[in-house]
Amino acid sequence: MSHPANEPYVRNAWYIAAWPEELEDGLVARTIMDRPLVFFRGPDGKVAALDDRCCHRGAPLSHGQVHEQGIQCGYHGLVFDGSGACVQIPGQDFVPATARVGAWPIVERQQCIWIWMGDPDAADESLIVDYPWHDQPEKWPHKKTTFRIEANYMMMIDNLMDLSHLAYVHRKTIGGNPEAHAAAEMVIEPTANGCHYERWMIDSPTPPTYVKAVGFKGNIDRWHRFTYHTPSTVIQNNGAIDVGKDARKNQDQPGLHFQILHTATPETETSFHYFWSVANGYRQNEPEATQQLFDESYPTFLEDKALLEVQQQRLDLDPDYRLVSTGLDKALTLARQALHKAIAAERPAASDAAE
Amino acid sequence: MSHPANEPYVRNAWYIAAWPEELEDGLVARTIMDRPLVFFRGPDGKVAALDDRCCHRGAPLSHGQVHEQGIQCGYHGLVFDGSGACVQIPGQDFVPATARVGAWPIVERQQCIWIWMGDPDAADESLIVDYPWHDQPEKWPHKKTTFRIEANYMMMIDNLMDLSHLAYVHRKTIGGNPEAHAAAEMVIEPTANGCHYERWMIDSPTPPTYVKAVGFKGNIDRWHRFTYHTPSTVIQNNGAIDVGKDARKNQDQPGLHFQILHTATPETETSFHYFWSVANGYRQNEPEATQQLFDESYPTFLEDKALLEVQQQRLDLDPDYRLVSTGLDKALTLARQALHKAIAAERPAASDAAE
Amino acid sequence: MSHPANEPYVRNAWYIAAWPEELEDGLVARTIMDRPLVFFRGPDGKVAALDDRCCHRGAPLSHGQVHEQGIQCGYHGLVFDGSGACVQIPGQDFVPATARVGAWPIVERQQCIWIWMGDPDAADESLIVDYPWHDQPEKWPHKKTTFRIEANYMMMIDNLMDLSHLAYVHRKTIGGNPEAHAAAEMVIEPTANGCHYERWMIDSPTPPTYVKAVGFKGNIDRWHRFTYHTPSTVIQNNGAIDVGKDARKNQDQPGLHFQILHTATPETETSFHYFWSVANGYRQNEPEATQQLFDESYPTFLEDKALLEVQQQRLDLDPDYRLVSTGLDKALTLARQALHKAIAAERPAASDAAE
Repeated sequence: MSHPANEPYVRNAWYIAAWPEELEDGLVARTIMDRPLVFFRGPDGKVAALDDRCCHRGAPLSHGQVHEQGIQCGYHGLVFDGSGACVQIPGQDFVPATARVGAWPIVERQQCIWIWMGDPDAADESLIVDYPWHDQPEKWPHKKTTFRIEANYMMMIDNLMDLSHLAYVHRKTIGGNPEAHAAAEMVIEPTANGCHYERWMIDSPTPPTYVKAVGFKGNIDRWHRFTYHTPSTVIQNNGAIDVGKDARKNQDQPGLHFQILHTATPETETSFHYFWSVANGYRQNEPEATQQLFDESYPTFLEDKALLEVQQQRLDLDPDYRLVSTGLDKALTLARQALHKAIAAERPAASDAAE
Repeated sequence: MSHPANEPYVRNAWYIAAWPEELEDGLVARTIMDRPLVFFRGPDGKVAALDDRCCHRGAPLSHGQVHEQGIQCGYHGLVFDGSGACVQIPGQDFVPATARVGAWPIVERQQCIWIWMGDPDAADESLIVDYPWHDQPEKWPHKKTTFRIEANYMMMIDNLMDLSHLAYVHRKTIGGNPEAHAAAEMVIEPTANGCHYERWMIDSPTPPTYVKAVGFKGNIDRWHRFTYHTPSTVIQNNGAIDVGKDARKNQDQPGLHFQILHTATPETETSFHYFWSVANGYRQNEPEATQQLFDESYPTFLEDKALLEVQQQRLDLDPDYRLVSTGLDKALTLARQALHKAIAAERPAASDAAE
Repeated sequence: MSHPANEPYVRNAWYIAAWPEELEDGLVARTIMDRPLVFFRGPDGKVAALDDRCCHRGAPLSHGQVHEQGIQCGYHGLVFDGSGACVQIPGQDFVPATARVGAWPIVERQQCIWIWMGDPDAADESLIVDYPWHDQPEKWPHKKTTFRIEANYMMMIDNLMDLSHLAYVHRKTIGGNPEAHAAAEMVIEPTANGCHYERWMIDSPTPPTYVKAVGFKGNIDRWHRFTYHTPSTVIQNNGAIDVGKDARKNQDQPGLHFQILHTATPETETSFHYFWSVANGYRQNEPEATQQLFDESYPTFLEDKALLEVQQQRLDLDPDYRLVSTGLDKALTLARQALHKAIAAERPAASDAAE
């Protein structure tokens, strides 16, 4: 039995499965929604996602290697193309039609490799979350990586929906005074497929790190904006510009800007792959500024990982334990409601698509 | 299914949960009887034991830190006092009455922190095992620590009820000739809540280590005395004085004396916390003598830990396997009988108190 | 539920349990068919196999030590002889007849220690696989060891029944061109209790390593011969002699010869002990040649271990997954058929012998 805070999978949705740079040196093995998969770039340049198990004797294809016709099993040399069809069996001319492994829809777009683990006929590319920042390397140079986190994927969404955790989880890194942001104006609202919230601090004192980063001379207008797209993507935009420039209507002025993509792709019910990307929108010509932004984010996100993993252990110990809501949970509650709507929407379809 | 040598928990009883010195630097996380707990000293100086799980999102409180009003969750900053009541929720003035976590009776006495995991109305402090040696630092300077051992707690009691294991388990440390003690006089008898045994060697040759320790000139009268108090405490007293001083009636004469407190607090059915303390009653003004006694006990008790853990593994593999009693098991049998009486006594109460 | 490629145990059969050299320094603890056993050489020089659990308090006998009358428990000193009977209980004269542990038939023959885990009345020594090479240290000096592999034992037999894996699993070690051996003549045939296959390459070019090893001047006749004996032994013979010497009829001529014994003794349903031995039949007077043959085999067999373990993980994940046969599986299919016959033959007997 599972704690109710653990959410089931939404199958008819796109998830990030890998970053393109992970495939530069060969294949990647990764389990998604309990299914071991192998990813590789085929001879046609397209990324393929196959079940990571040879149909002959069950060896993982990821134990083999990328081959000129696809991927070759490391046991007896069978070769499979990107559609999962076996195209070569050493020692025999005939390849039976039953010799194939499962293949999954993949779309590579905006520096992300997206996978669809549901009904293939419903794999509508227009549903992929738009992330144009990755396509603007001059305006938004970025750096990205992935962590494996042992918690239900929605624990990460909960975490991002409530910034009050910064003062506690990130006490030793970004931290900050829990009271300092109390005067911020908050807007929290549902969206068509998720929710959105933003915090505005108008005419506020400039933190020393901000001065150092971009040389502000006086007070600033600051904001954080988070948008959750079901089932598991959050787009974060942070900014600050000189006071008096009408920031609310015109955020795209010089100042301090950074952009983060967070996605949580379920591995099992109680683990996920956390793909994250940070983009530098303030000193774009300085690769070391992008690297520094990444290097500062890394230990901070490891603190989230540590917290989520011990939280999950406690929930797993007692599935009957009922959590108590607080006033901090407004965005979290909207996010969960949006997810539940997405789960309900696919239930008839899901029961067909399930193996 | 569990091997019958594994005993169930006695809930209506006091167990050592921590040593006071463990709380000097902050909180302690420890699972007792399957329940993760967090221990800390509150602003009133009293030790509190709370369920180690925030009522808000389930994070372990032990991932947070001690706070001026109690303990603060490391996720969103909720604060709980020693009674388990939430006394602060960041960002809101109102704290609902449902915001609380479980709290357990604690008594700090004689340098031990005792916990009661049963019916709180039955938590009678007079039932706590008396250990006055800890209150006499000048006469009995002591040193203590704890091991986590992967075995049912009664495996430790069995171990202490049969000293014949010294020659085999402790072959490389205290060991000794298995035949040497054969002439000892043995007394084994039941007590009101456990059992007691003692071994007397009257007018026996003095071991070189004893001569070195306290300078005996001739033969000595030696004794070992063990008292088991249900469910899981054993008090051990060892002594030797010059022959001819009527040791049986007057043990409190100068000589070689040391005192050990052993307790086994169940963590799970097949693991326990072994709290032990050794007190030096022979060269009390020399801290290095106390340290040496501790340093010699430490590897010896690790040998017991290693043995108990492999024993438990074997028992777990085959719960149907029936053990064969020998003549060595007299005290062990009395101890088990006393425990069974304690278990039977609380069964009606236990079924109410069980969550 | 278990994948159908995992085979159950054949109990009425002999398995290698240990190599004699493993017992030179004392006892060996090893689980066979889910049963923890302890092996030691008794005072009569005979190897004994006892259940690795003292009948007194359940401690593993392997935590004790070899004793002049058998093996002594490391907890309270009980001693058991090679028949499993307790022959000494410290502190008492009487040893009850119930004080004993299980013992298993053992035969030491041809440098192997064989165990029978089935009905003891059926333990017919004539069923032991003959391996005379171990008895000819001058003609066939050998070296042997054991690996623990986390896979069903028949995964190893499958592996040995299909040499096409050499080009893929052993790409980095012995490897070789997958096409090079295509012209070999193959013979695959069932035997009374298993199967046999051989590959002949008549008048073929001599590999440089062969020239270096034994100084061939021209082309050679080469062969590999594998014989599977149910349930889990494979005898491998490799050879090469100068062309034109009628190799098929007279293989025992000077040239390059080596001999391998492979056995897979089940530890659990999904793990086994892989005992292997390599014998040098070409430069018998040079111990360094035997050592080199062993040193080259070692990393190669570790590659098999790695492959089998990941294969087993995949099979365990989805017991319903059906494998697809290929033309490579002829010998494998004969081996599995022979095993199924052996399993069927003992089913009535097995249900009696099962504990």
